[in-house]
Amino acid sequence: MYTEFTIEGRNPVLEALRSGRSVDKVFLLDGARDNALGTILKEAKAHPECKIKFVKKEQLDAMSETGKHQGAVAVCAAYDYAEVEDMLEAAARKNEAPFLILLDGIEDPHNLGAIIRTANLAGAHGVVIREDRAVSLTATVAKASAGAINYTPVAKVTNMTETIKKLKDAGMWFVCADMGGETMYRLDLTGPIGLVIGNEGKGVSQLVKKNCDMVASIPMKGDIDSLNASVAAGVLAFEIVRQRLAGKK
Amino acid sequence: MYTEFTIEGRNPVLEALRSGRSVDKVFLLDGARDNALGTILKEAKAHPECKIKFVKKEQLDAMSETGKHQGAVAVCAAYDYAEVEDMLEAAARKNEAPFLILLDGIEDPHNLGAIIRTANLAGAHGVVIREDRAVSLTATVAKASAGAINYTPVAKVTNMTETIKKLKDAGMWFVCADMGGETMYRLDLTGPIGLVIGNEGKGVSQLVKKNCDMVASIPMKGDIDSLNASVAAGVLAFEIVRQRLAGKK
Repeated sequence: MYTEFTIEGRNPVLEALRSGRSVDKVFLLDGARDNALGTILKEAKAHPECKIKFVKKEQLDAMSETGKHQGAVAVCAAYDYAEVEDMLEAAARKNEAPFLILLDGIEDPHNLGAIIRTANLAGAHGVVIREDRAVSLTATVAKASAGAINYTPVAKVTNMTETIKKLKDAGMWFVCADMGGETMYRLDLTGPIGLVIGNEGKGVSQLVKKNCDMVASIPMKGDIDSLNASVAAGVLAFEIVRQRLAGKK
Repeated sequence: MYTEFTIEGRNPVLEALRSGRSVDKVFLLDGARDNALGTILKEAKAHPECKIKFVKKEQLDAMSETGKHQGAVAVCAAYDYAEVEDMLEAAARKNEAPFLILLDGIEDPHNLGAIIRTANLAGAHGVVIREDRAVSLTATVAKASAGAINYTPVAKVTNMTETIKKLKDAGMWFVCADMGGETMYRLDLTGPIGLVIGNEGKGVSQLVKKNCDMVASIPMKGDIDSLNASVAAGVLAFEIVRQRLAGKK
């Protein structure tokens, strides 16, 4: 479940920015140029995902719950990450073969949002993201997911390879998207499956690829290298849907 | 073919902004705060797609071709739009059934870029966009297309319905993506085809839908309404690819 909350006051806002927490927006009192607000502004500018807005006192007052904003309000995303086990249980409850989408380093929040949206509509039981060098759940992701973030669980793992190994031991099969693999129509994607999508620029990392059972390619003509990551995820996710509907063996 | 060019000097930059032309970036001399540059700044801020940067004189000198930038340089996109007829000729030259992607009001430049990228890799012969209430080819679109904009022709039409009618007379079939249509696997999408994708929020307009031969649906589970427009375009485009490869009759 995705929600937003505000942090109010100069020190709390500065601490939030310095803590490494994902801060979506910082609202600062327009016209005020003292040292403390200057420090917040400088810190906020160092966070590329953080939007900075200068607003009137009345607007800050309206946003503030405590009434003690001191000219600074931050808006942060609050999201309860799920556990991968919960996703498997959800699949079992529905009497469906597990279908997970694992993201090996997606960096663009629009892509992550679009993929969560795809996961929801393709009937996947969850999305697994990486903790390092990857985008987390932010306000931009929530918006791009068109509400899907409130229905489709997202888990964050520190070691994608370990997660894949554990799930393989539990009977799941893993397919990653990469050039030079087998054309996706020729693979059997009907069983309990994890679809692995790589980073926008670098693709799937070598170690993750090595641990996948299958490498799937989308048949491509044309002059450029690859589809947008969220489009590739969509095309592959719906190939899984097609095979499941057709009951391919 | 997409290129960029610069407009230099205070009056030329101001005129470019006021002309309605798509201006991607405006570079202004940092620190200068006179009336003329203030007017340019104000005008640039009124264009949401225009990025404003304050830079040092040396940087402006380096960008300038004429050497007479007067503290203001604008960067604009230059794109030679294609004609729909050229796309049909390209298909004929390759001895392929025409495959076009028509966008009935895509507004997000990332979506347009991703769709041009998809068109290139799915072997479509071109993308047709609408002149009104739709995004045109901008620097953001070019970037999101990952270079595909330099290979896949894009045509801009004033009346999408008229274009569809003419192409139907020339033997093409049109399928639009919409909920409540026939599941895409059950349709024959192997012939000369135009795939119509609607606006991000409103979908395909009624008149365009009425002129399509088929309405295709992507089989969807889940809790939300629709896929991201560029993902939906990708899933449908590659269903066309799948059927063409399978030689479905």
